[in-house]
Amino acid sequence: MDTQTSVLAAKMLSDLALIRSKSPLVHNITNYVAMNNTANALLSIGASPVMAQAVEEVEQMVAISSALVINIGTLSTNWVESMIKAGQAAYERKIPLLLDPVGAGATDFRTITCHQIIDTCNPAIIRGNASEIQALIDNTTVTKGVDSTSTTDAALESAKALAVKYKAVVVVSGETDYITDGTQVNSVSYGSPMMRSVTGMGCTASAIMGAFISVNSNAFEAATHAMLLMGMAGQLAAKYSKGNGSLQVNFLDELYSFNADSINRL
Amino acid sequence: MDTQTSVLAAKMLSDLALIRSKSPLVHNITNYVAMNNTANALLSIGASPVMAQAVEEVEQMVAISSALVINIGTLSTNWVESMIKAGQAAYERKIPLLLDPVGAGATDFRTITCHQIIDTCNPAIIRGNASEIQALIDNTTVTKGVDSTSTTDAALESAKALAVKYKAVVVVSGETDYITDGTQVNSVSYGSPMMRSVTGMGCTASAIMGAFISVNSNAFEAATHAMLLMGMAGQLAAKYSKGNGSLQVNFLDELYSFNADSINRL
Amino acid sequence: MDTQTSVLAAKMLSDLALIRSKSPLVHNITNYVAMNNTANALLSIGASPVMAQAVEEVEQMVAISSALVINIGTLSTNWVESMIKAGQAAYERKIPLLLDPVGAGATDFRTITCHQIIDTCNPAIIRGNASEIQALIDNTTVTKGVDSTSTTDAALESAKALAVKYKAVVVVSGETDYITDGTQVNSVSYGSPMMRSVTGMGCTASAIMGAFISVNSNAFEAATHAMLLMGMAGQLAAKYSKGNGSLQVNFLDELYSFNADSINRL
Repeated sequence: MDTQTSVLAAKMLSDLALIRSKSPLVHNITNYVAMNNTANALLSIGASPVMAQAVEEVEQMVAISSALVINIGTLSTNWVESMIKAGQAAYERKIPLLLDPVGAGATDFRTITCHQIIDTCNPAIIRGNASEIQALIDNTTVTKGVDSTSTTDAALESAKALAVKYKAVVVVSGETDYITDGTQVNSVSYGSPMMRSVTGMGCTASAIMGAFISVNSNAFEAATHAMLLMGMAGQLAAKYSKGNGSLQVNFLDELYSFNADSINRL
Repeated sequence: MDTQTSVLAAKMLSDLALIRSKSPLVHNITNYVAMNNTANALLSIGASPVMAQAVEEVEQMVAISSALVINIGTLSTNWVESMIKAGQAAYERKIPLLLDPVGAGATDFRTITCHQIIDTCNPAIIRGNASEIQALIDNTTVTKGVDSTSTTDAALESAKALAVKYKAVVVVSGETDYITDGTQVNSVSYGSPMMRSVTGMGCTASAIMGAFISVNSNAFEAATHAMLLMGMAGQLAAKYSKGNGSLQVNFLDELYSFNADSINRL
Repeated sequence: MDTQTSVLAAKMLSDLALIRSKSPLVHNITNYVAMNNTANALLSIGASPVMAQAVEEVEQMVAISSALVINIGTLSTNWVESMIKAGQAAYERKIPLLLDPVGAGATDFRTITCHQIIDTCNPAIIRGNASEIQALIDNTTVTKGVDSTSTTDAALESAKALAVKYKAVVVVSGETDYITDGTQVNSVSYGSPMMRSVTGMGCTASAIMGAFISVNSNAFEAATHAMLLMGMAGQLAAKYSKGNGSLQVNFLDELYSFNADSINRL
């Protein structure tokens, strides 16, 4: 491990200790597929997840939360109203918002909804795969469903442009993850190809990023630490996983017990 | 194990054998996060789960079911109508109803909906964590999302008052679980702290309670047996689980194979 | 293994290799309970799953997909509109549609919705358990929730009649699976009784059938290959699974690594 990564890992462990001691409430308006995984991942690292999407209650739930994560994976019309209401309530209360633009570019409905949320709620962080990030800044991008058809290297310039345009930290995750505020760029190269075969891994990254930003108000650092933890825990779990079934389980176990020794096992 | 617990455990095993032989249909209107876990837990113990929430069909589904479990974990406006319609249909047909008031106290929408369901559908059992049970009887309670900020000891008097007020068995689950009909109190102290890190464990307790009450019409006994099985299976599974990921899996396996030998392994 | 099964298994492996190389996008409008399992199962075999049900986007999502799977497990009124819109869009574009009539016969809403989808969208394959298949062709059938109260042997004639009536391949799955186009019948007898205790196994069969039909336009063959893979992977996983919890995980692992050696381990 190079010196820069060692420093980042130490700071990540420090944030993780804060999450475990403070147990921040992370409010998720997310998709049906990954709700169980993301709730468990938040519990794994010591945060307290709540999933709530009713228009009647989102403002009140945001008000007691430390971060809001909006994920459009299985979008419905009536959920969009709740997402925007929750996002605006978060912005007014200076509660950090993270947007996961699942499938942006695959359908107009997804792309348009993302822009609505960005324009009206000012997310602190936007995290997606290469195709999604490109689709948010370049209208001509063609994507395939919710899996990326591009590489993170190809998407880095789009990520920077998106970060500058919307004054947000942008994370483009894949084989190498890039985190940028438009000027600075961090990269994370941990993980395992097998992680692509576990549904909702990106959603999980976004969810735990919500926990990190709730204890570290520097969005660039928080996003980097979350991706570092994702990559390291995934890489460790993949070593003894026979397939995507056991990886989903082992990944949670690695998050649950993650500490300095975990890093030595990489 | 003390004599009283031995007696309860024997009666629990007797109910479990009935569930396995009768395979009662348990109708769940529950939350997105825990649907998979609760369906699997019901299958683990030999019951037959059905998840159905459309207003067009809930009455007909209730009519062929042996118990109804309503869980407000990820509440939506249109689901409230279905919950009440199903709950009233259950009451008219003398099919036992169990209410899981997830997040009661966290938002007015949740608290109000619980009271609507209680007032119009007369649940046989109400099962929640300490914060939720307190919020249903004491309007001043402040809670945090769906995790409890109180202890079950502190909530016992609220549980008794709630049981008396609504003529229901009330279960407050946590480190020590209390089951009360307002007069009698049973307590269960099995389980593992690691269970708090598995999402939907409370929802699972409510779901399997639905199976127990479908074979044992004594709600106080049924609720006690369900909590005993939850605690014992969870404690056994935690012994060889590295984290919340494997605990979720191992817990189902323990339920699946639970028998007199399981108790000897505690 | 008899010669006929060896031939089928070799052809199944050939389709599986195509799925892994082409990674077809399979669009699912499915139920909340099994979304995570089905997405993971599709990823296990190398397909690319997308779950999308908003009426605003289903046509556009279908248009970029190689197959559409409609599963009515947790039906809602507004989803019916999306299902039909998506199904019609698939039919117009000659994208194969698979219908999983979960709980048909248990409520009128489910039975009627299935007939609406069949009549307006012309599914290439209909896959259900014995009770569900019987309910679609014989209005007097009485079922229990989403679990079958009949045997596949008893349902074979109904399956054939349904296939003839709607010019579809019909699969009735259970202890022995039957696949028929009304004239030809294939049977698959792999699997394990423990699979019945894992929620969403039928839904998973339907989802991976969507992947097979996207690489093999012969619906009778595609359906047979999918059931063969389900049965074989489930039988292998059950050998070392202690209960339904670990079976759910091990089953995905077996799908993930399935190859000619897997067949030798049966």
